Amino acid sequence: MNMLENIPSSPKMKRKEYRSAMTRLENKTGELQREAVNSKIPVIIIFEGWGAAGKGTLINKLMMAFDPRGYNVHPIKAPTEEEQMRPFLWRFWTKTPEKGRIAIFDRSWYRRLSVERVDGKTGKKDWKRAYHEIKSFEKQLVDDGCLIVKFFLHISRKEQKKRFRELLANPATEWRVTKDDLRHHRQYGKYFKVFGEMLEGTDTDYAPWTIVESKNHNAATRKIFMEITGRLREKLSVPTTASPSCPVSGKSESAGKSIIGESDLSLSLSRGEYLEKLKKCQERMRELEYEVYRKRIPVLILYEGWDAAGKGGNIRRLSQSLDPRGYEVVPVAAPSDVEKRHHYLWRFWNRIPKAGHIAIFDRTWYGRVLVERVEGFCSQAEWNRAYDEINEMEKQFSDFGAVTVKFWLNIDRDEQLRRFNERRKNVWKQWKITEEDWRNREKWDLYLGAVDEMLLRTNTLHSPWTVVESNCKLYARIKTLETVIESVKKAL
Amino acid sequence: MNMLENIPSSPKMKRKEYRSAMTRLENKTGELQREAVNSKIPVIIIFEGWGAAGKGTLINKLMMAFDPRGYNVHPIKAPTEEEQMRPFLWRFWTKTPEKGRIAIFDRSWYRRLSVERVDGKTGKKDWKRAYHEIKSFEKQLVDDGCLIVKFFLHISRKEQKKRFRELLANPATEWRVTKDDLRHHRQYGKYFKVFGEMLEGTDTDYAPWTIVESKNHNAATRKIFMEITGRLREKLSVPTTASPSCPVSGKSESAGKSIIGESDLSLSLSRGEYLEKLKKCQERMRELEYEVYRKRIPVLILYEGWDAAGKGGNIRRLSQSLDPRGYEVVPVAAPSDVEKRHHYLWRFWNRIPKAGHIAIFDRTWYGRVLVERVEGFCSQAEWNRAYDEINEMEKQFSDFGAVTVKFWLNIDRDEQLRRFNERRKNVWKQWKITEEDWRNREKWDLYLGAVDEMLLRTNTLHSPWTVVESNCKLYARIKTLETVIESVKKAL
Repeated sequence: MNMLENIPSSPKMKRKEYRSAMTRLENKTGELQREAVNSKIPVIIIFEGWGAAGKGTLINKLMMAFDPRGYNVHPIKAPTEEEQMRPFLWRFWTKTPEKGRIAIFDRSWYRRLSVERVDGKTGKKDWKRAYHEIKSFEKQLVDDGCLIVKFFLHISRKEQKKRFRELLANPATEWRVTKDDLRHHRQYGKYFKVFGEMLEGTDTDYAPWTIVESKNHNAATRKIFMEITGRLREKLSVPTTASPSCPVSGKSESAGKSIIGESDLSLSLSRGEYLEKLKKCQERMRELEYEVYRKRIPVLILYEGWDAAGKGGNIRRLSQSLDPRGYEVVPVAAPSDVEKRHHYLWRFWNRIPKAGHIAIFDRTWYGRVLVERVEGFCSQAEWNRAYDEINEMEKQFSDFGAVTVKFWLNIDRDEQLRRFNERRKNVWKQWKITEEDWRNREKWDLYLGAVDEMLLRTNTLHSPWTVVESNCKLYARIKTLETVIESVKKAL
Repeated sequence: MNMLENIPSSPKMKRKEYRSAMTRLENKTGELQREAVNSKIPVIIIFEGWGAAGKGTLINKLMMAFDPRGYNVHPIKAPTEEEQMRPFLWRFWTKTPEKGRIAIFDRSWYRRLSVERVDGKTGKKDWKRAYHEIKSFEKQLVDDGCLIVKFFLHISRKEQKKRFRELLANPATEWRVTKDDLRHHRQYGKYFKVFGEMLEGTDTDYAPWTIVESKNHNAATRKIFMEITGRLREKLSVPTTASPSCPVSGKSESAGKSIIGESDLSLSLSRGEYLEKLKKCQERMRELEYEVYRKRIPVLILYEGWDAAGKGGNIRRLSQSLDPRGYEVVPVAAPSDVEKRHHYLWRFWNRIPKAGHIAIFDRTWYGRVLVERVEGFCSQAEWNRAYDEINEMEKQFSDFGAVTVKFWLNIDRDEQLRRFNERRKNVWKQWKITEEDWRNREKWDLYLGAVDEMLLRTNTLHSPWTVVESNCKLYARIKTLETVIESVKKAL
């Protein structure tokens, strides 16, 4: 059934009654906001609905009740050129609120399931897929502790017509009614169906819709405040600390032998072969860089590996011949304090390449299931959830047309020791080795388990892993170059 | 004399000699970069020059010598729509490097003085003014500890012709020569003059130009590395800590009596008058919001004032009637760790409104000369320099067409005490009062001196201060509303 049918109209209230109810609700809203700040809960409030249903006025009323230091309002229009060059959810990921802050969306990612769909701006395949992407996006945020409140402001076709007429009759407001508004009004029936489908398809336990009959402004206002205070109160009453211990394997030893244990580290290349191949590969890379640029394909090259496995030198050989306008190396270190206040994927969404560009990640989002897991920087429930979250994100990149190449640079323990000692002795390399490297080395086995599980659980068809045997640096460099070339060629 | 005339051509080197010199220079570059990281020095390297002079290749060579975790490359093209809606320097301020990082600009703000000028994309008034804006921008960054290295890659008309011909003859590179490139080549003479003017007009002690004769690629490479290592070494040898104590007044008591001491805090308004005026003002504000939107005027409304002077309530009355799509409240708290690694104005440049939008700042960049000065969060030289820096920034906003309205909400010490006590007692307001408020109150006189000096030194024609007598909140609210209305009307 269409959720927009048979909406009970809200009970009318006397003006005085309304006023006193609102004073209470507004105070309560402010109080709950402060509690949400203290409890570090990020809140997303979405306003969708018919044109002229009163979104602007209602949002402003809400803003007045909040402490202005705690929220941002995001009016969502058609995507800009910059935004079109990234996966659909990019511009929303980058706008997700910090822990303790509120993001109010005046229209949202639901544009894709409504106006963009009806206007034919988004193809059927894309908006169909958006259902899944949106639900997964909201789920990930809620899993991370976010509260999502979604309002749909409903008015009837008759009421909309009346409102547009009134606006048009007044020279001071006439300009606010756009041609698009009038066209959408003529398509009311079509939109009714599409909105209904959208609401039904995205009405989940973790992020349910609230449909607000908005003919009566006061009743709508009250309903919105009641819903927000109710949902906030509910969220605050649930302890958000330590996730329940999950019945999770942790290590995947049960799956049998180690994947990287099987990599043949004796593979090597002579200097002569290397130089010859390097030259050819680098030339090919430069050509491919131009081709992906012209075909607007984004390329992500991900480097993970043991300390001293040779990531830096490898990346250098890969990028040496490239045009700096077309690629970027994204070094990933510990998150800053601002980054820590967001979902762990937020900082990566901020750095994904735009169409036609290459991003080389020196360490990646896989830190969640490697260092963060091993060092206990996140809970077991968190890193265990991360495999699916990461697969989901990479799937979205792939659906957008991106090529993702993932490398694990593999060396054995003896080789690492040899390199550590060499670094210690060489005056040009001393800066590369720190106490932390030695500490990490102590935890080799823990990391080994984490690496194996990562390779097992995130090796997908669209974004496969390549284990690069790196005891011989020359061999490793050529293998990564050739792998990138193959992967990009396949996409072209 | 045109700086591009009579450039000595670089001495030729044998291949082997060049190779060994470069190995040394590259190692040295990496080493100096690490020292710059340790000394927290931000570095800007600019590449300007003729088309086909080899910028891309040279930049990539430089990147290879740097640790990829330490730099970003910014290719600068024509400004996007988003960028055109802000003052010219906005997109460069937001790209200035953190302390210890390197920003490499492939073309830069000098576009405005060259291609945008010749192509008529920027009017004469604008590019003339840009000379001053650019020099002031670079000066502010250098004052803050930044190293700026500027390269101009020079080739002759004949050499450029030869290079374009070669590129066009090869089907793999042909597409790299654009129509613009060829047009600019035909205008070589004109550009020669314009580039010469640009170099001469922006060749300063603190950010000098290095002209690199680029016919011989190896010689150019070597010169660039030598310049960078030389400038870095020089910068690192100068102690960057505590600025020399300046012979600065600090307080401006010498100027006579206190400005805010003269404000008449007995001014007040009855509730009846207030409600009547409030309604009228708010309606007018909403109309003006639409008008500035249509005329693409950015509006900045700045709030500073004593603790408990009523900023929050005041801002609420101002924004209550506005359409949330057109305005934003920007609350300013202590800087985050990322913000601290930048010039103190960086975070504000990131938040200035785009054309047609209103930004209401709840506390502002004046924190530099108020709390940061009083609490010793910055040195005397730093806050003393800030007055001019701020005036300069606000001047740039004004030149761009922005309206800036600045409020100091003034109350006296007794009134503050009364409000603090009230907050302590009222259960709905307790959250508003903290230990810090009481501590700040102890320093009333120090703040008074800082406020007076601020009002004196930053009260400019383009961005004047308004002291708002706020012992009576009702009076204060109407005065700010009326002041904003007046200022915006004048601009329309």
